Amino acid sequence: MSYAISPLDTTLVDALRAKIDHKTKPLGALGRLEPLALQIARIQQTLTPALTQPQLLVFAGDHGAARAGVSAYPQDVTWQMVENFLAGGAAINVFARQMRLGLRVVDAGVAHDFGPRDKLIDGKIAPGTANYIEQPAMSPAQRDKALRFGRDLAHHLAERGCNAIGFGEMGIGNTASASLITHGITGTPLPQVVGRGTGLDDAGLDRKQALLGAALARGGRPDDPLSLLAEYGGFEIAMMTGAMLGAAEKRMLLVIDGFIVTAALLVAHAVCPAILDYCVFAHRSEEAGHRAQLAHLDASPLLDLGLRLGEGTGAALAWPLLQAAVNFLNEMASFESAGVSGKG
Amino acid sequence: MSYAISPLDTTLVDALRAKIDHKTKPLGALGRLEPLALQIARIQQTLTPALTQPQLLVFAGDHGAARAGVSAYPQDVTWQMVENFLAGGAAINVFARQMRLGLRVVDAGVAHDFGPRDKLIDGKIAPGTANYIEQPAMSPAQRDKALRFGRDLAHHLAERGCNAIGFGEMGIGNTASASLITHGITGTPLPQVVGRGTGLDDAGLDRKQALLGAALARGGRPDDPLSLLAEYGGFEIAMMTGAMLGAAEKRMLLVIDGFIVTAALLVAHAVCPAILDYCVFAHRSEEAGHRAQLAHLDASPLLDLGLRLGEGTGAALAWPLLQAAVNFLNEMASFESAGVSGKG
Repeated sequence: MSYAISPLDTTLVDALRAKIDHKTKPLGALGRLEPLALQIARIQQTLTPALTQPQLLVFAGDHGAARAGVSAYPQDVTWQMVENFLAGGAAINVFARQMRLGLRVVDAGVAHDFGPRDKLIDGKIAPGTANYIEQPAMSPAQRDKALRFGRDLAHHLAERGCNAIGFGEMGIGNTASASLITHGITGTPLPQVVGRGTGLDDAGLDRKQALLGAALARGGRPDDPLSLLAEYGGFEIAMMTGAMLGAAEKRMLLVIDGFIVTAALLVAHAVCPAILDYCVFAHRSEEAGHRAQLAHLDASPLLDLGLRLGEGTGAALAWPLLQAAVNFLNEMASFESAGVSGKG
Repeated sequence: MSYAISPLDTTLVDALRAKIDHKTKPLGALGRLEPLALQIARIQQTLTPALTQPQLLVFAGDHGAARAGVSAYPQDVTWQMVENFLAGGAAINVFARQMRLGLRVVDAGVAHDFGPRDKLIDGKIAPGTANYIEQPAMSPAQRDKALRFGRDLAHHLAERGCNAIGFGEMGIGNTASASLITHGITGTPLPQVVGRGTGLDDAGLDRKQALLGAALARGGRPDDPLSLLAEYGGFEIAMMTGAMLGAAEKRMLLVIDGFIVTAALLVAHAVCPAILDYCVFAHRSEEAGHRAQLAHLDASPLLDLGLRLGEGTGAALAWPLLQAAVNFLNEMASFESAGVSGKG
């Protein structure tokens, strides 16, 4: 598959800078909201951007390695949390309601039969990946199917008028998978990108590190990002990667959450670097490996609140800042229109 | 005047911690939202807090020293920006609309006759302070009148059902006044707390530093915080100080914006240290002296976005995080209610 992602051009930059600089405020006084407004307007190729039908997608999947003990929680928590999402009781539901964001759960590969359900998109590749300590997590065909499903989903949303996607995930064991991907792509030593996930104690962290070391000893560190994805990924991670690439093809805004979402982006970025032009980094996660990911992408998140929940909660919490950037650009008066004197 | 501010007690702390820890998320995974929820619930003395009729107050006033050249903008910008607020075209209007916050402008001492206007509260003490380079900025009687007006305003809002106030300000020259107050209370050397305000160049910054040095040579550094306030303050700063103290008396949540608002809080805190229990620090300002203020108060702001606009824009932008803290506490399911397994 090849992806048609256009790097942002500079056509409107001067006009946008002038528009921002004529607003009734000191030059640059809105700090990071100013480049954010510029980015969103450039993505949309307009002086008057708008965020329409914004959508949070929570990709869920199970991991064969979870049964080997890489997480503090039992694997059943994946489907139980999906039920919690569908019932509206999880953190991401609360924040999506507050921020008026659409929310859909994507079953990319949960080891559970949900049947047809409102707000659940059935993209199940298989009921969980294989255990990458023993064999590749997924076949190339499964990976490609996940990528394609994600891409089609993003395209479908774009056709329905959505121009911004917030990415979230759920999958017991998926910080472990994200660590292997992060190590594989950034080259950061494994111990620096393996963290406590949902709350491992010291012994649990040691075990996780040993298991991931064993996985690496088996599977190595493939140079090709898509081979790496098949070797160690989760279905939810692969499907996110596809959705990110598809969203950028459609010039949508990508709101990137924490460690696992950024692992999917590392793969997407390795495939197509121009994707970064469409990304906003919502928050700095407490999970250990996020720092290495952000450094690799030269990314600076908007929020730093010590979050490590996943689900897209950081993306949801950053959403009002994106909306504020668009709103000030569209709604603020200029010095001229408001009759305010300029600098003396 | 004495202020009846009760430090928060520990009555509900254990019950609130238990409630937070039973939510369907790893322990502590919501980062800073968790202590924020705890604080708001303790302020309101309930397990189910609510933010009701939240109100942004933008206190405006003119400064005699502005005519001496401490700002990059002419003094008329104060009243012109008040007109901009009343017309709905300023950044704070945009953000207040977005966050659904009430917004009122308080004329604490603008050198302009607005007449009776919707959304404008007339608390004018005088048309601008005296020039503190030559004489005290205000008399003790003026200061006390400003403090009392602010306190009464907060009490009035509390009686009308408002339990959270976001503080903002407008006043050409008021970073200079805030610098003198910050130096006076924290003892930080003046050069470290004098910044570029609305955008002084190097020569302008040098002039501002020299003028403030001259002010200090005349007025000294009074030990008593209220004497300091009269010596160098603005009417908008004094009135905010009173409103903060009055709001804390009524157990309201105080959302603290940037450098000038925090200068008012420094005075309030020196008068009554318990006020800090009621404060949330919205953002870290780019204005130089904010760092010293935050260190003095041992405060850690929620946002760090390089803002230096004032008006209460940081308070407005942080608002969704406060609402999110309250919402997760009230709306999230528990492990028990959602049927989700705990840690293995």
